[in-house]
Amino acid sequence: MPKITCLAGGVGAARLLQGLVKVVPSKDITIIINTGDDIELYGLKISPDVDIITYTLAGIVNENTGWGIHGDSFHCLNALSNFGHETWFNLGDIDIATHISRTMLLREGHTLSEITARHAKFLGIEANLIPMTDDHFATHIVINGGLLHFQEYLVHRRASDPVQGVKFVGAETSRPAPGLIKALRETDCVIVCPSNPIVSIGTILSIPGVRNALCETDAKVTAISPIVGGAPVKGPADKIMAGMGLEVSAYAVAELYRDFLDSFVIDSLDQCHADAIRRLGINVVVTNTIMGTQEDKVRLAETTLRSIDLV
Amino acid sequence: MPKITCLAGGVGAARLLQGLVKVVPSKDITIIINTGDDIELYGLKISPDVDIITYTLAGIVNENTGWGIHGDSFHCLNALSNFGHETWFNLGDIDIATHISRTMLLREGHTLSEITARHAKFLGIEANLIPMTDDHFATHIVINGGLLHFQEYLVHRRASDPVQGVKFVGAETSRPAPGLIKALRETDCVIVCPSNPIVSIGTILSIPGVRNALCETDAKVTAISPIVGGAPVKGPADKIMAGMGLEVSAYAVAELYRDFLDSFVIDSLDQCHADAIRRLGINVVVTNTIMGTQEDKVRLAETTLRSIDLV
Repeated sequence: MPKITCLAGGVGAARLLQGLVKVVPSKDITIIINTGDDIELYGLKISPDVDIITYTLAGIVNENTGWGIHGDSFHCLNALSNFGHETWFNLGDIDIATHISRTMLLREGHTLSEITARHAKFLGIEANLIPMTDDHFATHIVINGGLLHFQEYLVHRRASDPVQGVKFVGAETSRPAPGLIKALRETDCVIVCPSNPIVSIGTILSIPGVRNALCETDAKVTAISPIVGGAPVKGPADKIMAGMGLEVSAYAVAELYRDFLDSFVIDSLDQCHADAIRRLGINVVVTNTIMGTQEDKVRLAETTLRSIDLV
Repeated sequence: MPKITCLAGGVGAARLLQGLVKVVPSKDITIIINTGDDIELYGLKISPDVDIITYTLAGIVNENTGWGIHGDSFHCLNALSNFGHETWFNLGDIDIATHISRTMLLREGHTLSEITARHAKFLGIEANLIPMTDDHFATHIVINGGLLHFQEYLVHRRASDPVQGVKFVGAETSRPAPGLIKALRETDCVIVCPSNPIVSIGTILSIPGVRNALCETDAKVTAISPIVGGAPVKGPADKIMAGMGLEVSAYAVAELYRDFLDSFVIDSLDQCHADAIRRLGINVVVTNTIMGTQEDKVRLAETTLRSIDLV
């Protein structure tokens, strides 16, 4: 079976991965996960995208929200609120155990990579999960000339501020997590999941050495457009792309990825962009990319692999 | 109304205090609480006796156990166990919020005193709660010539090891918490609650300046014996007293407190010790000290105040 390496953000990536693990054995899949969203809240180290991918592959994610744990209760967070703490970032009681465990293990000197692998193992996940870096990296959004942590912008202020730009704090000094570069070089295929091209994939690409490895790998590189019909399926990609002066379109995403992309899976709604993207030297596959059902996820995973002749 | 200062450990003290707050206004009561049991577990700062007193006075304690919160769930702890962490110290989901809040505020530079007052205020407690010190203090039990944290001894190993002694780590350098000495000097009465005389009250007395203030105060000092009929009502006081070469009796407790005690409330079962205790120069009141019902608690609080002519 082919070895597959994925670049992943949160919910959109998790949905594709739910399909992918039905098509290829999990143990052959390595998932490199954005950590730009990571934040310390309530004294706990929270890695939103790592947890979304972990919970989803473990089969315990809250499918309604795409994050958090199915059926989780919120007794602890309510009690924190009763003690006068701001609780704009929702954490369930079972979810909090993940953050307590991560915080404790980090303080004991373990790396985020080691902790992520440990959590995945205890939850029965066979895929290899790699946070993009073990170093401090934080995505900030430029608002009114000032900087706001991405979670402050997205969750606390509900993405309501006009975006003027993004800043990846720590990007220059962050090192790729152990195994990351190897996972891009020694693989049969790289899938860039349908995640925000700036704050989910752009962060991973900003880690020194990652973009280069992606450009130089012998593996085929394919991506699924997170933009459908001029809008993101989920999340604030439209506001962020627009704030950076980019067009909000599948074509604009293709341009961002053009230096490493062999093939691009776009939605039928974006058929009109196909020729322009092909002129960038990228193979284009047009299909329905909306993943409502488990069948949709499997089908999109198969189409994605077929886009680079892997199935 | 008289001002009352109490020295308190955990469950036994909390029961008396439930009665006391029915007899005198809460705002006139200051409670100095043992922190020798404090421990960091799961990366969280836990103050067992502070929380027992706080939860009890807030009316949310689990009355069956005497600690923890009534009706609390254990989803977070179960999840920590599923991640391979040792979970011998039971923490409910609501309870965990207290520890998360405390840990966060300590890391932000607040003192344990400030945090304790904050938690009490948010839970509607009018009594003044003072942890004995804001400095690091840890009770260790000498076992087989080695040291074991008190919680390891009591909870993890269920007080099963023969005790050879106790060591108060940090006692020499700990300072009384702000307001503690004043609360002993400027009060009408001091009540030493029916708590372990070594690891709950002995810890408080070991803080430099505390025992002296207690000996020199103009206030009347009374105590309720935690030993009834040669055994503690709750907890390992028998094992600890015996391990230190002390007799396990109300008389032995009176001897430990003789330098500051004006009056001592002992159980009817210990009537036989009354004369010997009186010969130490201590007034003795004999009554039923077992607090099964709320009425028992109120009655014992009244008897205790009457022992020093305060009601």
